[in-house]
Amino acid sequence: MPRGGFSAGSRKLELAVDTGNPLLNRTLDGFIKIGAVGACKVAAEDAFECLHKGNVSTNKLEHTLKKMCKEGAYWGTVAGVYVGMEYGVERIRGRSDWKNALIGGVVSGALISAASNSHRDKIVKDAITGGAIATAAEFINYLT
Amino acid sequence: MPRGGFSAGSRKLELAVDTGNPLLNRTLDGFIKIGAVGACKVAAEDAFECLHKGNVSTNKLEHTLKKMCKEGAYWGTVAGVYVGMEYGVERIRGRSDWKNALIGGVVSGALISAASNSHRDKIVKDAITGGAIATAAEFINYLT
Repeated sequence: MPRGGFSAGSRKLELAVDTGNPLLNRTLDGFIKIGAVGACKVAAEDAFECLHKGNVSTNKLEHTLKKMCKEGAYWGTVAGVYVGMEYGVERIRGRSDWKNALIGGVVSGALISAASNSHRDKIVKDAITGGAIATAAEFINYLT
Repeated sequence: MPRGGFSAGSRKLELAVDTGNPLLNRTLDGFIKIGAVGACKVAAEDAFECLHKGNVSTNKLEHTLKKMCKEGAYWGTVAGVYVGMEYGVERIRGRSDWKNALIGGVVSGALISAASNSHRDKIVKDAITGGAIATAAEFINYLT
């Protein structure tokens, strides 16, 4: 069941959604978790910039919030598509190995590239890059 | 023990190196495996380009080989530094959770950025990006 949450000290706020479909659940889970990571990245970057330059304004804060939503949604979508794809490939192949990550990465890379109106050659290159990154992440996962 | 290898059908060529130090072993393992993924990515990209344009020349092949070595070494170095860092953080903290990935990613991002002679601000931003990517990969790893 997809769960997202914030914790500050011993306090925790949790959010759980159950769509009733394991593929959708995983996709949503990936979207929430990785979206939060993407949003935190923007928040950390902008907090550093504010501390560095020493000026905080409402305008800047608004801009940061908008950027957090935008980047969070992008990271979340990429992760959701990949997680859903990998789960689908695993169900179809009936095996759980690094080839699932490779196929999932290739399909996700192609899908995301196609969705952003890329040229045909660019889609193939993005598919290759997606597959390579997913395979590398899977290998690192076994190593650590 | 770091192992790298190629397999074609039922034939396998394996390479195993033991440096006697678990940290070095992991770093080397990450370098070999992810370096190979990086090199394969370049090979796949250039193979697609050759098939697409329909011309193969010795010059082009030489260029591809050089690019494979360069990109393989870069991917391998990034992965080796990250795997080594994560292992070090795990040993120091004595726990195995997503915070190891976050710290490992931040330190690796900063190190790699500093090694490529980046500006001080760029190093901090690369550290944040490294931490975010490592955390996202760790979360995806739990999901799949």
